[in-house]
Amino acid sequence: MTVNRSLRTVDTDVVGMTFATPLQPLLYEPVVRRALEEDLGCAGDLTTDTLVDPTTRAVARIVTRRAGCVAGLFPALATFRMLDPELTAECPVSDGEHVDSGATLAVLEGAARPMMSAERVALNILGRMCGIATVTSRAVSACEGTRAVVVCTRKTAPGLRILDKYAVRMGGGGNHRFGLDDGILIKDNHIIAAGGIGKAIARVAGRAGHMVKVEIEVDTLDQLDQVLALGGVDAVLLDNMDTSTLTEAVRRVDGRFLTEASGGITPDQVGAVAATGVDLISLGWLTHSVANFDLSLELEYQ
Amino acid sequence: MTVNRSLRTVDTDVVGMTFATPLQPLLYEPVVRRALEEDLGCAGDLTTDTLVDPTTRAVARIVTRRAGCVAGLFPALATFRMLDPELTAECPVSDGEHVDSGATLAVLEGAARPMMSAERVALNILGRMCGIATVTSRAVSACEGTRAVVVCTRKTAPGLRILDKYAVRMGGGGNHRFGLDDGILIKDNHIIAAGGIGKAIARVAGRAGHMVKVEIEVDTLDQLDQVLALGGVDAVLLDNMDTSTLTEAVRRVDGRFLTEASGGITPDQVGAVAATGVDLISLGWLTHSVANFDLSLELEYQ
Amino acid sequence: MTVNRSLRTVDTDVVGMTFATPLQPLLYEPVVRRALEEDLGCAGDLTTDTLVDPTTRAVARIVTRRAGCVAGLFPALATFRMLDPELTAECPVSDGEHVDSGATLAVLEGAARPMMSAERVALNILGRMCGIATVTSRAVSACEGTRAVVVCTRKTAPGLRILDKYAVRMGGGGNHRFGLDDGILIKDNHIIAAGGIGKAIARVAGRAGHMVKVEIEVDTLDQLDQVLALGGVDAVLLDNMDTSTLTEAVRRVDGRFLTEASGGITPDQVGAVAATGVDLISLGWLTHSVANFDLSLELEYQ
Amino acid sequence: MTVNRSLRTVDTDVVGMTFATPLQPLLYEPVVRRALEEDLGCAGDLTTDTLVDPTTRAVARIVTRRAGCVAGLFPALATFRMLDPELTAECPVSDGEHVDSGATLAVLEGAARPMMSAERVALNILGRMCGIATVTSRAVSACEGTRAVVVCTRKTAPGLRILDKYAVRMGGGGNHRFGLDDGILIKDNHIIAAGGIGKAIARVAGRAGHMVKVEIEVDTLDQLDQVLALGGVDAVLLDNMDTSTLTEAVRRVDGRFLTEASGGITPDQVGAVAATGVDLISLGWLTHSVANFDLSLELEYQ
Amino acid sequence: MTVNRSLRTVDTDVVGMTFATPLQPLLYEPVVRRALEEDLGCAGDLTTDTLVDPTTRAVARIVTRRAGCVAGLFPALATFRMLDPELTAECPVSDGEHVDSGATLAVLEGAARPMMSAERVALNILGRMCGIATVTSRAVSACEGTRAVVVCTRKTAPGLRILDKYAVRMGGGGNHRFGLDDGILIKDNHIIAAGGIGKAIARVAGRAGHMVKVEIEVDTLDQLDQVLALGGVDAVLLDNMDTSTLTEAVRRVDGRFLTEASGGITPDQVGAVAATGVDLISLGWLTHSVANFDLSLELEYQ
Amino acid sequence: MTVNRSLRTVDTDVVGMTFATPLQPLLYEPVVRRALEEDLGCAGDLTTDTLVDPTTRAVARIVTRRAGCVAGLFPALATFRMLDPELTAECPVSDGEHVDSGATLAVLEGAARPMMSAERVALNILGRMCGIATVTSRAVSACEGTRAVVVCTRKTAPGLRILDKYAVRMGGGGNHRFGLDDGILIKDNHIIAAGGIGKAIARVAGRAGHMVKVEIEVDTLDQLDQVLALGGVDAVLLDNMDTSTLTEAVRRVDGRFLTEASGGITPDQVGAVAATGVDLISLGWLTHSVANFDLSLELEYQ
Repeated sequence: MTVNRSLRTVDTDVVGMTFATPLQPLLYEPVVRRALEEDLGCAGDLTTDTLVDPTTRAVARIVTRRAGCVAGLFPALATFRMLDPELTAECPVSDGEHVDSGATLAVLEGAARPMMSAERVALNILGRMCGIATVTSRAVSACEGTRAVVVCTRKTAPGLRILDKYAVRMGGGGNHRFGLDDGILIKDNHIIAAGGIGKAIARVAGRAGHMVKVEIEVDTLDQLDQVLALGGVDAVLLDNMDTSTLTEAVRRVDGRFLTEASGGITPDQVGAVAATGVDLISLGWLTHSVANFDLSLELEYQ
Repeated sequence: MTVNRSLRTVDTDVVGMTFATPLQPLLYEPVVRRALEEDLGCAGDLTTDTLVDPTTRAVARIVTRRAGCVAGLFPALATFRMLDPELTAECPVSDGEHVDSGATLAVLEGAARPMMSAERVALNILGRMCGIATVTSRAVSACEGTRAVVVCTRKTAPGLRILDKYAVRMGGGGNHRFGLDDGILIKDNHIIAAGGIGKAIARVAGRAGHMVKVEIEVDTLDQLDQVLALGGVDAVLLDNMDTSTLTEAVRRVDGRFLTEASGGITPDQVGAVAATGVDLISLGWLTHSVANFDLSLELEYQ
Repeated sequence: MTVNRSLRTVDTDVVGMTFATPLQPLLYEPVVRRALEEDLGCAGDLTTDTLVDPTTRAVARIVTRRAGCVAGLFPALATFRMLDPELTAECPVSDGEHVDSGATLAVLEGAARPMMSAERVALNILGRMCGIATVTSRAVSACEGTRAVVVCTRKTAPGLRILDKYAVRMGGGGNHRFGLDDGILIKDNHIIAAGGIGKAIARVAGRAGHMVKVEIEVDTLDQLDQVLALGGVDAVLLDNMDTSTLTEAVRRVDGRFLTEASGGITPDQVGAVAATGVDLISLGWLTHSVANFDLSLELEYQ
Repeated sequence: MTVNRSLRTVDTDVVGMTFATPLQPLLYEPVVRRALEEDLGCAGDLTTDTLVDPTTRAVARIVTRRAGCVAGLFPALATFRMLDPELTAECPVSDGEHVDSGATLAVLEGAARPMMSAERVALNILGRMCGIATVTSRAVSACEGTRAVVVCTRKTAPGLRILDKYAVRMGGGGNHRFGLDDGILIKDNHIIAAGGIGKAIARVAGRAGHMVKVEIEVDTLDQLDQVLALGGVDAVLLDNMDTSTLTEAVRRVDGRFLTEASGGITPDQVGAVAATGVDLISLGWLTHSVANFDLSLELEYQ
Repeated sequence: MTVNRSLRTVDTDVVGMTFATPLQPLLYEPVVRRALEEDLGCAGDLTTDTLVDPTTRAVARIVTRRAGCVAGLFPALATFRMLDPELTAECPVSDGEHVDSGATLAVLEGAARPMMSAERVALNILGRMCGIATVTSRAVSACEGTRAVVVCTRKTAPGLRILDKYAVRMGGGGNHRFGLDDGILIKDNHIIAAGGIGKAIARVAGRAGHMVKVEIEVDTLDQLDQVLALGGVDAVLLDNMDTSTLTEAVRRVDGRFLTEASGGITPDQVGAVAATGVDLISLGWLTHSVANFDLSLELEYQ
Repeated sequence: MTVNRSLRTVDTDVVGMTFATPLQPLLYEPVVRRALEEDLGCAGDLTTDTLVDPTTRAVARIVTRRAGCVAGLFPALATFRMLDPELTAECPVSDGEHVDSGATLAVLEGAARPMMSAERVALNILGRMCGIATVTSRAVSACEGTRAVVVCTRKTAPGLRILDKYAVRMGGGGNHRFGLDDGILIKDNHIIAAGGIGKAIARVAGRAGHMVKVEIEVDTLDQLDQVLALGGVDAVLLDNMDTSTLTEAVRRVDGRFLTEASGGITPDQVGAVAATGVDLISLGWLTHSVANFDLSLELEYQ
């Protein structure tokens, strides 16, 4: 399967994905451009420009040295193509697929110089995104058989939210808010400022737009009872509760709104938390503590 | 100690640092601005703007929940100040200092709304940078008593190189190349393209600027011997060698140029690698697999 | 009341507003800057620079020649201050207030040159925003005594959405989606693509994030009945229905989700549509066909 | 007639226009890009991405629901193509042509998703521009048989001057100054600052570049007489004069320089003002109070 | 005289200039910022950050080693202030003044590090601008006693037009067109395309805006006669004519429109060309072949 | 030889260059774009758009009127292509080649309008770069038979460093530091701040990254002796020394590190300075006082 010259348009066609929200090139291309500018500096790739003939061509494979879930093929390919619009690429796998160690993620063909100059930035992008997708898919697996959806938070790398959130989706997770403008999430300090849970919910009810969902954070079952008595929210964030408290919280809510477990949940605890019956488990470490995916570019000159 | 209104100029004065390359506000402010724009979206902080009175003021402490090494106070404060130029801040610690869990990193005073709206972005920046500094300082500790300097690579988060590299310095590490234009690093593919180690070094010698250092990667002692026979480089990167090979390599080089151990060195191995006598140990995981530093903003309304 | 030097931070304090989502300077300043660059061109204000002495100072009043609702004081003042950071300003009124013809909206004091050079851009911004707020407040008045909230659409001037949407809020209206990423709105073409209303709702249910609200457009009562049978949406957009059909639609929905009347509703019809009992009335002409507010800058040299 | 892939270069060729100053893609593309970024937000088109298959293709017609004058086809097509470089388009009409209600302005063919995601922004741009062109062409018609040229002012939407001014030209109008650097226009406050009409004209004569035209605003016939006595200007702006005063002013000027009627001229008055013999009539409402042109995108899946 | 903290607003006040078109900080600050970013790269000023204590303060004088005309003090000071907003500066001279070798142009006081880091960029800007002003003032002197105004062309350094044109004004020269949108200048190729001088002038007459001046290039007296017979232009560019032909051309034009001598006029020829009676002499070398002004920063630590 | 549509990738292939560091389009395209925006302003090329039919096509030759060394063909062609992506170009010469007066540097074919609108900007870029390359090649010739390499400094035009430095390379020169982050250059003020040569070198030794070269400026042979006694630097800048002192300095250094002559060396002196045996001669005037290369665009309509 060939990724043809107009990478933008074949976005999801080629790789046959049907996920809800694909990556829009208009939105991620500035991220890729900045990363390349940052790496090329003012003088460009001194080593490659000195040692590789401008007419040399190469075929290169992006190979993974780990098993995991793929994400970020398009931004990675866009990195190479930003230095060489003539580069062609074939991708034996798609974003969202699981691969074994040793798998080839993409085969590139084109001029050797731009391929080598773009390598590090492309792998930095792809490695981070595969890392996020892989750890997400593990958390998702731990929830198998439960109703719990694993979601990420706003704890993303500065400037990379669009890529981080997409990688979580590719790993099978969901996205919590994209930003402060994407729904209302009433936290403890907001409740204090408003003068209590009741006043907070009332004020939000009177002001929030009709397309804005409302979630409220509670720390105790007492607070939860207050919210249950008041209604007016779409979801409740159960903050830092142990599994027995979570189980009781889910029982009390009884489907009246979504329940989200949050707060310091470790990879080991995900399964147990999911077993409490919560609808959502939000995990900051999906994106704030990313283990890079080990990738290499195996290049042969032609 | 008060960080006064002109944050830029007091940069290093206030915190009394004497490190070699401090962070230039002109260079990191665009990173902070983009991160805020990303989080505020088009509609801004719906929750805070709905629930917190615009006249409410607050004092907030940035508190760490982990022990480690601090880095990123200035970009973090700049984040708050970009939404509220009137905010004042005191920092009981400085970048590069080690703190215990529970330590206060900064005390902020100002309008509550912008403080709350900037919180997540500021902590995302500071958390990542403290994370990098802390893991770096551990690697540096593992090298104590040896000549080895721990250095980072170009495996940084896209767009965040300036922050990632600075955090490494704050952790006591050194910086390898900032980008492809920052020195010549001859890798295996460059050697092949040039037609061998001899031709590569010769070509570089004839073309590299006089302010450009040259390092070459070797995979075997045989290759090292070739380089030793030729000279003409400032450093040699010993790629993926076990410690006994590294020891022998260091012996053969005998101070004629710097030796750098690189390639898949795990945290556990750092000490052993340092003991081989190499001058430098480069570690991608300092920046590509960052464990976020757990921080919280403890806010009280006034 | 004086708008002091740090305009950003006093944003809402000074004018005492308590609206839900104020304008964030970080977000609107680039709009103001571009408008000034567009007007100053390469050579700047040839006339003023030729004829007004650089040391001349002036006091100027922004006076309205129409009665209406005020919006945009802060971006307008920011325009002047971008050319003259020393300018001081007093605002006898606030955004969201109604004024008579002849009212003074702001009194500026500072160097004459930048005040005169910024005048046109500032009035272009303020005039458009007051125009939007005023027409919105009339539509809102027409709904008095009903439950209907007047909301704007995405039919805003390219690049000015943040200002247009804010002006609607100042006029007493609400905001529909800020962008394509701000909630799901299933329109006729989406229904066709999905293979029918049932499939569309089902697919959305399986994929939409938990903070994402869902609205669906229906053209007929039959379609509405399908939606009622399925549930799974937060709101229904009743497209191009006459008032009797709207009344019947509202009756059938019976509060199970929000009802929005939309499609070619003229200013004259707003009251009658509101009387049908719909929750929301969306009006493209609030922002796509703006009647500028007639303002003048009355300047006296000092 | 097919608008082929390289939209930029065929700009005016394809549509066969011979107008003086066409739209330069280099200059309007940033406007289009910002408008798309504003609408796509961080997460993109949630609805379309959820419900429309990535492989679905569509044909769409942009159809007008009003009669009027067309302007903005190229920026509108550029909007679609920025999300889908492979999109093809045929335009049965050209900018500057008059169309009946129901006319097809463009036929698009390509992937359904980007077409649907770009729709609103493209129609916002095209609707505003057709609206400006249409109202301009009406004002131009009202001047038929007179020497009067209808011109727009600097009262354009912030950031959209290039598009607004072009739309006026397509409607048959002319452009007054593009910005403060585009000629000298001496207004009342400039005259006061300079110390009178004589001093203002003298100072301008001594300082203005030789490629800079000079126009002066007069409020009374007395002032006009002063200007006539002095000479040294290219045009005189007759501000807020009734038609009999305008007629007398034109008589006194007697072709010695251009005469421009300005100030609160309503659509109904344009014809009568033109009949006074003035050379130019400037109308702020051509651009500051735009009635959007009602357009729809009629889409069929393939 | 102290340049206080708000450099923008005191722009022309402090230095007491009354020139027609001063430099607008909003417009030149991006130029300064880019030049600093270019020089600081990713890692900043390695040398200064390594060797100069962050608390060290300094006083520095910008001293000229040549006699000439000053231009560019404000952008130069802005360069320093962009790295140190607290820097204070006194300027014993103003833009447009003539100075002897050894003169002090500015005295700076502030933190040593940012002063040293900004030095090269500031001097690059100031040196180029003083160089342009100085060579311009010499050309202006050569025209003394004649009516000829010396003007620059569009042959400016890419991206620096605003600074180059301003420096010419400070040297006593005038500015020809700022860009392709700043007046109509009909050159030989335009005449050919239009089908002759007559058709070109006629077409321009029918299409140019009323604030647009028109100049036409002629190569021979015959062409000049055609233009004289037709009228309809504001100026005529006499291209590559010797002084006797210029004299005859001026005689024939006899004040009916402005005459501009252009085309390969060397510094030695300026006086003779001016003596022909032309109104304008345009010289590309004022800006395309700039001899840098030799400046130094004499710094003393405090 | 045809420069085909994808200019970026054929960069060095087509023109067959094998120089060390070619120009990266990603890095210079923003420079070209800004220069075009600066020249087109808001209204574009009024003259060409008025007088040249949009369907007219042309062939144009870029011809030099001087003998010299070529540099900048790619940015120049990119200028034309940014206004007309369909333009084709053939280049009979390559960057770095020497040409006689009258030589054709490029032959362009395409639509006439964009070719004429881009002409001035393209020639401004190419003219400056050829000017730099030519004067560099003369300095290089003056050093023939010696070991001296001619290098440029950081005295480049603001914002054009990447182009200026490349042009020096094309003229046969080398590049000194690209920016303040590109190596350590210890100047007199740094030495004073550090407390002497010894302390400065020691501090640098302890802090500089291992890929950072160190050069130190000395004004006297005594200072040189101090450096020789200390070692620890890669190069020494011999500032403002006469040739006999330079000769003695070179003798004393005796190859222990590179020697660079710098400071006010005029074109006439380059040969004599080279004869002293220094390794490098740095010349600010290569880039700060550029004599533009006289070029013309000879255009014929088709």
